[in-house]
Amino acid sequence: MAQVATIVTLDILPDKDAEFRSIIEAMIADVRANEPDTLLYCLTRDAEGGRYRMLELYASADAAAAHGKRETIRARARLIGPCLATPVTIEKLEGIL
Amino acid sequence: MAQVATIVTLDILPDKDAEFRSIIEAMIADVRANEPDTLLYCLTRDAEGGRYRMLELYASADAAAAHGKRETIRARARLIGPCLATPVTIEKLEGIL
Repeated sequence: MAQVATIVTLDILPDKDAEFRSIIEAMIADVRANEPDTLLYCLTRDAEGGRYRMLELYASADAAAAHGKRETIRARARLIGPCLATPVTIEKLEGIL
Repeated sequence: MAQVATIVTLDILPDKDAEFRSIIEAMIADVRANEPDTLLYCLTRDAEGGRYRMLELYASADAAAAHGKRETIRARARLIGPCLATPVTIEKLEGIL
């Protein structure tokens, strides 16, 4: 089964940046400790320093699905909701090489 | 020094897909064999199966710059040129977490 990647774009309200950072930091630590098939899960930011981009790479579509079903991920995603200036955009990519 | 990531979007001419694939496959093999500070260098494709997206993660801005200066990378990038339907777009991202 091919790898799958996801690019998540997040516009965070200026006054919610610190709150977002603490949530996502805990989320990343949890994933890196508990999801061996999540090969990459990192927070980046575009050059203008505006939008955040999560780069995520999973060993398989099943691994991506398992990630999405974990309650700790869902709970933290709900916490991020009020920090958003615009809805999250999620681009799903098929791993080729 | 923080990690840096790059998302490269490539629209490939339909009749050049096989040619592109063979060039990028060699490019990826070269990078994985010779660039220990290139932490991720993988080819993905969007869900519609149209555009390719290279996801690249470098240990530092210096590592990204060193990658870009390698002659084998430049030579293969030149080979990809005629395969493109539209100019390549490159998004540079600052690694945060």
